[in-house]
Amino acid sequence: MSNLFGLTCRTTVAPLLATALERLGDATYRGASWISQEDKHLARTATRTPKPPALPGHIALLRLDWESPQQQASVVTGEFGLVWRGAIANAAETAELLNAVGYAAHSLYPADLAAALLQWHLSTTHNLLLAACATSAQLQGVFAFIATSARHPGQIVCASHHVPLMLATSDDCSAVSDQLAPLVAIAPQVAKLEHGDVARLLYGHVEVIARDGTPALRTPERVGDHRAAPDFFRYYMEKEIREQAIVLADTLGRTGHAPDLSVLLDEDAARVLAGIDHILLIGSGSSYQAALTARYWLEALAGLPAQAEHASEFRFRELAMPANTLVIAISQSGETADTVASLGHAQRAGAAITLAITNNADSTLAQLADFANCTAAGPEVGLTSTKTFTAQLLTLYLLTQGLARQRGYLTPAELAEVETMLAQLPLSVQDVLQREGQLAQWAHKLAKRPLLLYTARHQQYPIALEGAQKMLEVAYLHAEGHPGGELKHGPLALVDRDLAVVACMPWNRHAEKLLANLQEVRSRQGELFVLSDTALAAGERFNAIRMPPTLRDLDPILYSVALQLLAYRVALARGTEIDNPRHLAKAFAEE
Amino acid sequence: MSNLFGLTCRTTVAPLLATALERLGDATYRGASWISQEDKHLARTATRTPKPPALPGHIALLRLDWESPQQQASVVTGEFGLVWRGAIANAAETAELLNAVGYAAHSLYPADLAAALLQWHLSTTHNLLLAACATSAQLQGVFAFIATSARHPGQIVCASHHVPLMLATSDDCSAVSDQLAPLVAIAPQVAKLEHGDVARLLYGHVEVIARDGTPALRTPERVGDHRAAPDFFRYYMEKEIREQAIVLADTLGRTGHAPDLSVLLDEDAARVLAGIDHILLIGSGSSYQAALTARYWLEALAGLPAQAEHASEFRFRELAMPANTLVIAISQSGETADTVASLGHAQRAGAAITLAITNNADSTLAQLADFANCTAAGPEVGLTSTKTFTAQLLTLYLLTQGLARQRGYLTPAELAEVETMLAQLPLSVQDVLQREGQLAQWAHKLAKRPLLLYTARHQQYPIALEGAQKMLEVAYLHAEGHPGGELKHGPLALVDRDLAVVACMPWNRHAEKLLANLQEVRSRQGELFVLSDTALAAGERFNAIRMPPTLRDLDPILYSVALQLLAYRVALARGTEIDNPRHLAKAFAEE
Repeated sequence: MSNLFGLTCRTTVAPLLATALERLGDATYRGASWISQEDKHLARTATRTPKPPALPGHIALLRLDWESPQQQASVVTGEFGLVWRGAIANAAETAELLNAVGYAAHSLYPADLAAALLQWHLSTTHNLLLAACATSAQLQGVFAFIATSARHPGQIVCASHHVPLMLATSDDCSAVSDQLAPLVAIAPQVAKLEHGDVARLLYGHVEVIARDGTPALRTPERVGDHRAAPDFFRYYMEKEIREQAIVLADTLGRTGHAPDLSVLLDEDAARVLAGIDHILLIGSGSSYQAALTARYWLEALAGLPAQAEHASEFRFRELAMPANTLVIAISQSGETADTVASLGHAQRAGAAITLAITNNADSTLAQLADFANCTAAGPEVGLTSTKTFTAQLLTLYLLTQGLARQRGYLTPAELAEVETMLAQLPLSVQDVLQREGQLAQWAHKLAKRPLLLYTARHQQYPIALEGAQKMLEVAYLHAEGHPGGELKHGPLALVDRDLAVVACMPWNRHAEKLLANLQEVRSRQGELFVLSDTALAAGERFNAIRMPPTLRDLDPILYSVALQLLAYRVALARGTEIDNPRHLAKAFAEE
Repeated sequence: MSNLFGLTCRTTVAPLLATALERLGDATYRGASWISQEDKHLARTATRTPKPPALPGHIALLRLDWESPQQQASVVTGEFGLVWRGAIANAAETAELLNAVGYAAHSLYPADLAAALLQWHLSTTHNLLLAACATSAQLQGVFAFIATSARHPGQIVCASHHVPLMLATSDDCSAVSDQLAPLVAIAPQVAKLEHGDVARLLYGHVEVIARDGTPALRTPERVGDHRAAPDFFRYYMEKEIREQAIVLADTLGRTGHAPDLSVLLDEDAARVLAGIDHILLIGSGSSYQAALTARYWLEALAGLPAQAEHASEFRFRELAMPANTLVIAISQSGETADTVASLGHAQRAGAAITLAITNNADSTLAQLADFANCTAAGPEVGLTSTKTFTAQLLTLYLLTQGLARQRGYLTPAELAEVETMLAQLPLSVQDVLQREGQLAQWAHKLAKRPLLLYTARHQQYPIALEGAQKMLEVAYLHAEGHPGGELKHGPLALVDRDLAVVACMPWNRHAEKLLANLQEVRSRQGELFVLSDTALAAGERFNAIRMPPTLRDLDPILYSVALQLLAYRVALARGTEIDNPRHLAKAFAEE
C-alpha cells in the first residue's frame, strides 16, 4: 500500500507538514518520497520514515510506502513533479499516443506516462487544471496522482480514479490526501472527491472539475476524532473492502503487469526458484483458503505439483518431503503461531526453499523464511481479513505466472493475455464493489436463515470456503463451504425450504456441472443465490447477480470481494459487532 | 466377508442343502468350499458359486467367500473337517502351546490352529463337544468355526466369538449359520448363540455350553420374512455397524497380521510398487475421508509423500503429476462416476500405477485400474457406509505397512508391534461396540441440538469429518468437522450454550493441543462430548466416554465405529428413515 499527500502554503510548508504528518501516529512506513518546489525549482528527496526533512518552499508532495519504497512512483521530469498511486489499464495504448504526438514518456510506469501527458496537455492549454483534466480523462484504471508545475507556482493539481482523495483548506493553505488523519491538522472540515474528479489547490482555495468536465462543489464536512473513525466509513471492514481495488492497483503499480520473479522477489530468488519441482503451501483460516486457490493455479498454469495444508495440522505431521520442494508459508500478520511453527517444521524436514507471504515485512515469518514477499495491503484494522486476502491471492497469482514464464509455460500470446487481465483487475474489482446494493438485497433475505451453504467448483471452491468463513466470523450466521460435486455426499441431506445456497459460478467449463449440482438443491426446495458473469433469469427461489466479465484465472479475486460485501451486509442486517467479532483475534499467537 | 453354514441330517444332506442355499437368492459369492463326511471319510471340494455340488453323506460344512476364495479357511486334517471365519489375537502363543504338547499345527492360519487344538483336546476328552469348548476357550479373537470329526458321525460342533451364529433344528436335521436366510429353510424358529457359546448339533437336537462352561438354553424364536428383515436387527445400519469386528477379522484372516503386498495384492503389484515415489488418493464422501486418513499413514509410516483429493474436483483439474506416482482410487461401489472419471484422468495425466480399492471386484473402477483390492466388507444394504468405510481403512493401513516393509521403514521390533496391534483390532472394535449404551445417552442429549461440531487432530481429523457426515446423512442433524487447530479460524464464532462439540481424543502427543482447543469451546459455554482412551472426569457440560486402550495408528478405526453408533442412536432418537436416508443414493452414477 502507499499513500499520497500534497500541501500548498502561503508560508513555507515545513512547519505545517510536520504537524500534519505527526497525525499518522506510529503507522509503519518503510519509505517516503518528497517533492518540493522553491523558486520554480523542483527537487526530490527520499527518506526511510515519514518524518519530513526540512523542505524548502511553498509546495510539498509526498508518497509514503508501506512496503519497500518504490522510486518510479514519484517523478520530477522537466517542469513537473508528480506523486502517483495505483495502476492503469491502458499503459501501452497511452505510450503509443504520446509517441505519436512527440511527448514520449520515459517508461511505461504510470507516473511517467501521467507526467508526459501533463506536459503535452499543458503545452496546448497553458492551464494546469485543464491539463490535469485531460490527463485524467486519458488514463483508465484505479489510481490517484498529485502534481505540480514549476511554471505555476503555488498550485497543485490532483486526480482521483476510484481512490478516495480528500481535501482540506484553510486561509493560508490547502492539502490533499487519501488519508483523513493528516488533513485534520489543516482544517476541521474535509471534502471528499468523487470518482473522476480533478482538483486544483491554491492557498485557501480549491476548484474541482467533475468527470463530465463541469465544475463541481464538494462540500466539506466536519470530521470527528479521526483516530476512532475509519475515514468516512461506518466500519473498518467496509473501508477495507472498498480499498481493495486500489490495494490491488498498488501491487500492480509495484510489480508491473508482466509477472516477473526478479521484480516480485529478487534476482537471487528467481535463480533458486528455477530448480524447484514441487510446492507446498501452508496457511490457517483465510490464508489456507489463499493457499488452496494458489494450488489450482500452480498446477494448471505453471505445471508444478502443489499441495495446500492447514498449518495447525501440518506442524505436527511426520513429513515425507519430496526433493526440491518450495514451501510457501502464508500469514497476514506473519505471527500466526501454527504457521511459524510449520515453516520451521518444513525447514527441518528438508524443504529446499522457503518463502513467506505476509502483510508485515518485519514479522517472524518473514525473518525465518529464505525469501519474503510483503503483500501491498497496508494496515488492516478490521479483525476479519478482507484486503489482505485478495492481496495474498494476487501475489500468489503473480508468483505462479512468474514461475510459468520462467519454466516456459507461457507463449507470448498467453503472456499478453495475462497482462491484459492483470491490467483490468482493479477496475473489475471496482465494478464488483458497485454490486453492494444488490448484495444488500440478498443480505436482507439471508439474515434470518439458520444456515447457509456456499458452493463452487475448481478455483472458486476455496473462495466458497472463504465466503462461508467471513459470514461465520462477522455475521455469526452459520455457513459452510463445499465443492459442488461433494454436495451429494452429505450436505444435500440438509436442504429444505429454509436453506439458502450461495454459489460462485463464473461461466466457464465448470459451470454446467455446478448448475447440475444446484439443480439438485432446487429440486429439494432450497433457495439459490448465484453470482455469475452470464445473464441468468432470476425466478422463484432463484436469485442471481451478474458479475463483471470474466478475468479467467483471476476470477477468484472478484468473487471474493462480492462474498465479503455479502457477509458485511448480513452482519449489518443482524447488528453484530463488525470490527470486533467475538472469539476472533487478529493474529493467533496462542497455538 | 465370508459366511459359514453347517448341516447334519438323518438322511443324505444334498436335497436340504440345495433348498437352504437357494434362500441366499442372488447374493454374489466368488467361491465356496465344501466339506462332506461319508462313512468316516472326510472330503473337501471347492466351487466358484454357492450352488452345492452333489455331496454324499449326512454332514456338510460350507464356507462362502464374497471375495476370491481363501483355501486356508477350510481344512480337512487327520480326522477333522473345519470351516473357519475370522481372526485370532493369540496365534503365536497358541502355536507354541501346541508345539509343547506335541500337536503342532500345519501353519499359523487360524483354521489349522483350531483343528490342531481340537485334535489335542479330543485325544484327552474323547468328547467332541468338550474338545470344542476347550478349543474355543484357548482362542482369543473375533471368529467362528464349525467342525466335524470322522470318529463322531452325525455330530457337528460350532463355536462363536462375537460372530452371531444361529441354529435351526427340525426332527431330521440341525443346521448352523451366521446368516438367517438358509436356516429358514430348515425350521421356522431359529436360536441365536451368545458370545463364547459352543454348540453340538445332532439330528433334531442341539446342546449349548456357555462361555462359563455351564449348559445353556438358547430359546428359538419365530422369524418373519427374512428377506425383508436384517437378521434380528432393527435396521441394516445397526447390523452393518455391529458386523464390523468380524468384517475386519475376515480381512485379517485373509491377509494375516503381517502386512505383505504380495498377499494384499499380488507378486506383480508388489514388484511395481517398489518403484513409486508419490501417492495420490482419490475418493468422494466417506471414501475421501478414508483417503485423507491414509495420507497421514503413508507419510508417517512409509515415508511416502501423499495427497488426498475429492474426486469431483480432481477430475476437472489440470494436473501436474509427479513422476512415479501411484494413484489409489477408492469407492465402495466402484461405480462412483466422479471417481471412475478421476482414475481415467489420472491415467491420461501419466500416473505410473493405478490401484482401485472397492467393495466390488467386478466394478468399473476395479476393471479400469492396473490393480484392485476388494475390501472384505460384504454386501452393504444400509445406504450410508459403515463397515465398508472401516474395511477401506484397514486395507489402506495394510497397504501402508506393506509399503513400509518393502521400503525398509519397519524394524523387526516395529513389525512385531504392528502385528500385535492388528491382531488386537477386531476385539477392540468389539469393545467399542459395547459403548452403545453410553453413546445412546449422548444421543439423547444431542438429538435436539441445532448444530454439532466434530473435531480432532492429526489422523483423527478425517474421522471427525466422517462422523459429521454420518450424522448429517442419517440423523439430518447439522454437523460439521474441523481440525482442532482451525476452530479459532471461524467456527468458534458459533459457540454458545446450544452448541455441542464432539471430539476424538486418543491420549497421544496431539491430545494436549486438542485439549487446549476444547478449553476455548468450554470457556464459551459450549458443551463437550469427548471420546478418549484416558480417564476423564465428566462434569458440568463435559461428557466423556472411555474408549478401549489405544491401537496407535489403528485408532481411527475404533473412533469411526463409535461415531457411527452415535449417528445411529441420534437417528433413532429423531425417528429418521435410517436405512433409506433422504437425498442419498448408494452409488453416484450421476456426476
